[in-house]
Amino acid sequence: MTSDGLGLDTEVISALETADVRFPTSAQLDGSDAMNPEPDYSAAYVVLRTSSGGVGYGLAFTVGRGNDVQVAAIEALAPLVVGLPVAEVLGDLGAFSRRLTGDSQLRWLGPHKGVIHMAAGAVVNAMWDLYGRRAGKPVWQLLSDLTPRQLVDLVDFRYLSDALTADEALDILERAREGRGARRDELLRNGYPAYTTTPGWLGYSDDKLVTLAREAVADGFHHIKLKVGADRDADVWRMRIAREAVGPDVRIAVDANQAWGVQEAIDWMRLLAPYDPYWIEEPTSPDDVLGHAAIRQGVAPVRVATGEHTHNAVMFKQLLQAGAIDILQLDATRVAGVTENVAILLLAAKFGIPVCPHAGGVGLCEMVQHLAMFDYVAVSASTQDRVVEYVDHLHEHFVDPATIARGRYIAPRLPGLSAQLKPASVEAYRFPDGPRWADTDPAAIP
Amino acid sequence: MTSDGLGLDTEVISALETADVRFPTSAQLDGSDAMNPEPDYSAAYVVLRTSSGGVGYGLAFTVGRGNDVQVAAIEALAPLVVGLPVAEVLGDLGAFSRRLTGDSQLRWLGPHKGVIHMAAGAVVNAMWDLYGRRAGKPVWQLLSDLTPRQLVDLVDFRYLSDALTADEALDILERAREGRGARRDELLRNGYPAYTTTPGWLGYSDDKLVTLAREAVADGFHHIKLKVGADRDADVWRMRIAREAVGPDVRIAVDANQAWGVQEAIDWMRLLAPYDPYWIEEPTSPDDVLGHAAIRQGVAPVRVATGEHTHNAVMFKQLLQAGAIDILQLDATRVAGVTENVAILLLAAKFGIPVCPHAGGVGLCEMVQHLAMFDYVAVSASTQDRVVEYVDHLHEHFVDPATIARGRYIAPRLPGLSAQLKPASVEAYRFPDGPRWADTDPAAIP
Repeated sequence: MTSDGLGLDTEVISALETADVRFPTSAQLDGSDAMNPEPDYSAAYVVLRTSSGGVGYGLAFTVGRGNDVQVAAIEALAPLVVGLPVAEVLGDLGAFSRRLTGDSQLRWLGPHKGVIHMAAGAVVNAMWDLYGRRAGKPVWQLLSDLTPRQLVDLVDFRYLSDALTADEALDILERAREGRGARRDELLRNGYPAYTTTPGWLGYSDDKLVTLAREAVADGFHHIKLKVGADRDADVWRMRIAREAVGPDVRIAVDANQAWGVQEAIDWMRLLAPYDPYWIEEPTSPDDVLGHAAIRQGVAPVRVATGEHTHNAVMFKQLLQAGAIDILQLDATRVAGVTENVAILLLAAKFGIPVCPHAGGVGLCEMVQHLAMFDYVAVSASTQDRVVEYVDHLHEHFVDPATIARGRYIAPRLPGLSAQLKPASVEAYRFPDGPRWADTDPAAIP
Repeated sequence: MTSDGLGLDTEVISALETADVRFPTSAQLDGSDAMNPEPDYSAAYVVLRTSSGGVGYGLAFTVGRGNDVQVAAIEALAPLVVGLPVAEVLGDLGAFSRRLTGDSQLRWLGPHKGVIHMAAGAVVNAMWDLYGRRAGKPVWQLLSDLTPRQLVDLVDFRYLSDALTADEALDILERAREGRGARRDELLRNGYPAYTTTPGWLGYSDDKLVTLAREAVADGFHHIKLKVGADRDADVWRMRIAREAVGPDVRIAVDANQAWGVQEAIDWMRLLAPYDPYWIEEPTSPDDVLGHAAIRQGVAPVRVATGEHTHNAVMFKQLLQAGAIDILQLDATRVAGVTENVAILLLAAKFGIPVCPHAGGVGLCEMVQHLAMFDYVAVSASTQDRVVEYVDHLHEHFVDPATIARGRYIAPRLPGLSAQLKPASVEAYRFPDGPRWADTDPAAIP
C-alpha cells in the first residue's frame, strides 16, 4: 500500500486468521456458577501476520455455543485490518482501536458492546502482542515504558471527559513516574498478588470445597472466592464451612454471576454477612449502574465488585461516577483490548478504586496479568487491596502460561501478551472438526 | 416431540430460515447522519415455519457490513427453537423470550446486548407475527386484546422490580382497560400521529432540505427532524433555514446520532436553541445514562430523547430512574422484540414518559407502529406528545407496508407484525449473491 522509498514494499498486515477453539470443560463442572451451569470454555482465536513474517496472537473468550458467532465478528473486521502498514498502526494504536470500533456500518452491531466489541478486543490485543514481540518486551513492561503522553494518546476521551480529561490522565501518569523503576524491580522479584476461585465452583461437593480451600491457603493465597446465587441455604452453608476451613484472616469473596435483582441481592447478602464476605461480585445485571449503587448502600461494609461483563469504558465511568463499586474487575477481552483497558485503568485511578482483574476462562489470566502489572508500575503505583483472579485450568495450552508461586503471579518475561495457544492445542480442540470434538458423540455436547 | 393423543404429531416449529438482505441505500445518501455517513440499510431476515404450514416473519435491522454476523447470531438460536411445540410457545411467550436470552452459553455473547440480543429480537418478533396470523389479528390488536395478567406474565421482572413491580404493571394495565374499545375505534378511523425524518439527512443540499421540509408540512406533518452533529456552523444554518421554511408551529427535532461528549452536547445545543429545537436525540453515547441526565439539565427546556441503541429494558429503567430523558424512543429489533418492548412500554407508563418509537431503516416503521398503537389502546391510553418516526423509503419491499395519510400512520389491518418482505425483494437483494449485488462492481461497495 505504501513504499519505503527504497523500492521495497513497506511491511503491512498481510493476514488475519481465526480459529474456533473449545475445551470440553462442562464435563467436570469446572467453571459452573449460578448463570453458567455448563460452560465449555472457548476462544475465538486470532492470528495477525505481517508481510515481513511478524506475528501477533489474540483471542476473545466465550463459554461455548456462539463461539462461531464471535469468530464471524472477528472475520468481519479483517477488511479494516489487512493491508494496513504496520508502522502506521504501531505509531497510533489509539487510531487503530477507533478504526475497529468506529466503522460506520459495523458499529451498528454494538455500538461498543457485544460480539463486535469483543472482536475488536481480540484484534487489538493481537496487535499489542505483535508490538511486544517486536519490542522484545512483555506487554506490561512495554506499556510501563511508554511516556505519559504516549499513554494518554491511546485514549478516546470523547465520551469520558466529563469524568476524566486528558490533562487529568497526564497528571496521574506523571505522578506515577517516580518510582517506576523500583516497582518494576520489585515486581520482577516478588510477582503480583493473586486470589483463587478454584475451590468455589457451584458444582463441587462440600468435601472438595473444604479441601481445595485449605489447599489454597497452604499454597499461599490470602483470598479465595465462592460462587453463590443458586440456593440461599446452600450458600449460607458453603460460606460457613469455607470460613471454618480457612479461618478469620483469609478473605472470602462471593460471586453471584448476575443472579439477583436489586433488593434480592441485599437480602441474600444479609444472610451471608455473619461469615464476613469480602466482596459481592456481579450481584445483578452488569448493565445496572444505579442498581449496583443501591446494592452497595444496602450491603456495606461488604464491598461491591463488577466488571467482567461491563462492556466498555463508558459503563465503567458511570459505575465510578455513581459510587456503585468498591472494586473494578476489568476483563482482557470484553472491551476493546489493551487500548480501552488503559482508559479504564486511568478512570479507576482518578476515582481511587482498586482494579482486581477478572480472569480464568481461556487465556484471561495470561492477558490480565499484564494490565495489573502495568497498573502497579505506571498508573496506580500500588498493590494495596489489589489482586488478580487465578483459576488453575487450561494454562497447559499456552506457550507462555501464567505462573503462580506462593499466591502471586510471576511477572511474564517473554515478549508479547502471553495469548499464544500451542499449535497442537488449536488443532486438537478446533470446533467442530478437531479430534477432541470430532470423536465426541454430538448428543453429549450440552 | 410430543403427541396430541390422536396419533398425530403435535405442531412444532419445524424450521428457522435466514437471509442476508441488503439495500444499496448509500448510493443516494438517504440515511446519512453524523455517525452513519454511508449506510446500506439491511435486514437479517428470519422465517419461522411450523410442521402444520404455519409461518412467521421477523428481522433485525443493520446498516450493511456485519449483517452476515447478525445472520450468524440468529442461526445460533435455531437449536433453541426448532422442535418446540407451537402451542407451548404461544402459551408462554415470556418463557420463550427468556429461553432465547438466557441460554447459559450464548448469553456470554451479550448478555442482553449486541447481535445476540438483536437475534433474539428477530426470532421473538417472528413468533409474534406467527401468533398474529394465527389469531387473525394485527399484533397491535392482538396485544390490546390480551388481559392485564397475560401482558404482565410476558415480563421478566428480575432486573426491573426496583423500578416497576408486577403489581404496579397490573395496575397500569387495569386503569387503561376503561376506554380500550373507544380508543381502538378511534385509531382505526384516524390512525396514529407520525413525524418525518425524510427532509433532514446530512447529505442533502439546502434546497432539497427546504423543499422536503415544506412538502412534509403540506403533507400534514406537524413535526420533522434534522440530523446534526457533523459541523456546528452548518447545523445552525440548516436549523435556521428549516425553521424559516416551516414556520414557528411545526416541531423540529434534531438528532446527533451519538456524535458528542456531554459538555459538547450542551454547548452545541445552545447554538441551536434560538431556532426552538423540540428534542435533541442521541446527544452522546447511548450507554451514558448519567451523561444524558447531565445533558438534560444543561439543555432544558429542549427535551432529551434516546432509545434506538438502548440495548435492553435495564438500560431504559435507568434512563427513567435517573430522570435522563423526556422522550423514550424504543426500537423494534434492538431489544428482544415485542416481548421486551411490552416491559419497556410499562416502564415508560410508570414514569409518565411518552414513547416515540425509532423507525426508518428496513421494516422498522412496519413493526413499531404496532407497539405505539398497543400503547395507545392498552397502556398509556394517550397520544399526547407521542409520534412515531416515519421515513419514506424501502416500504415497497414489504407485503403489508406502513402507510401514511395526512401525517398519520394508518392502523394495519392484516394479521401479523407487518414484517414480511416480498419474496422477490429477498431474492433480488440477497447479499452477496442476489442480482442487485452480484451485478455490482465490488469496488463500488463502500
